[in-house]
Amino acid sequence: MNLIFSLPSQWVELIGYFGSFLTSITFIPQVYKSWKSKSVGDLSIWMVLIVITSTIVWLVYGFAIQSGPVILANTIVFILTLVLLGFKLSFPKSK
Amino acid sequence: MNLIFSLPSQWVELIGYFGSFLTSITFIPQVYKSWKSKSVGDLSIWMVLIVITSTIVWLVYGFAIQSGPVILANTIVFILTLVLLGFKLSFPKSK
Repeated sequence: MNLIFSLPSQWVELIGYFGSFLTSITFIPQVYKSWKSKSVGDLSIWMVLIVITSTIVWLVYGFAIQSGPVILANTIVFILTLVLLGFKLSFPKSK
Repeated sequence: MNLIFSLPSQWVELIGYFGSFLTSITFIPQVYKSWKSKSVGDLSIWMVLIVITSTIVWLVYGFAIQSGPVILANTIVFILTLVLLGFKLSFPKSK
């Protein structure tokens, strides 16, 4: 762990931004796949609802600590999971 | 925003822990649903792979900034998404 702890702070910040970037794009392939297939039967609506709720909480946190990466990542995830929720509610349940 | 910015720091920390908690449990309903149905055709493997990658990045970040909530949440999400990846690779592709 000492190796990690002793990383220069710019590196740490960069790693944070990279994590933030990956989190932001997480739901892009899912939205794309769901849109193409018009099939979301295997997706848990609870997962989607928890993600939406958590992004709202993280946004409040992000604004409170004024963290750009937290605000940006969660705004994008919030929008993408709202889209997934829309799919979940509107696509036919045929499976 | 001033309302949020002026939150007491204990509140902010509590909100962070709450977000962390919600993120931790995000994939529990998905793992449960996938296990019950043995059907993961609608799940994007790219989403799963991005989440696994991002949790590794966040874990490095969490250890670097020594943030308990970041480490805990991402350890749990990492394990749950590894399980989902196992489902994705082992369940039949019948759809």
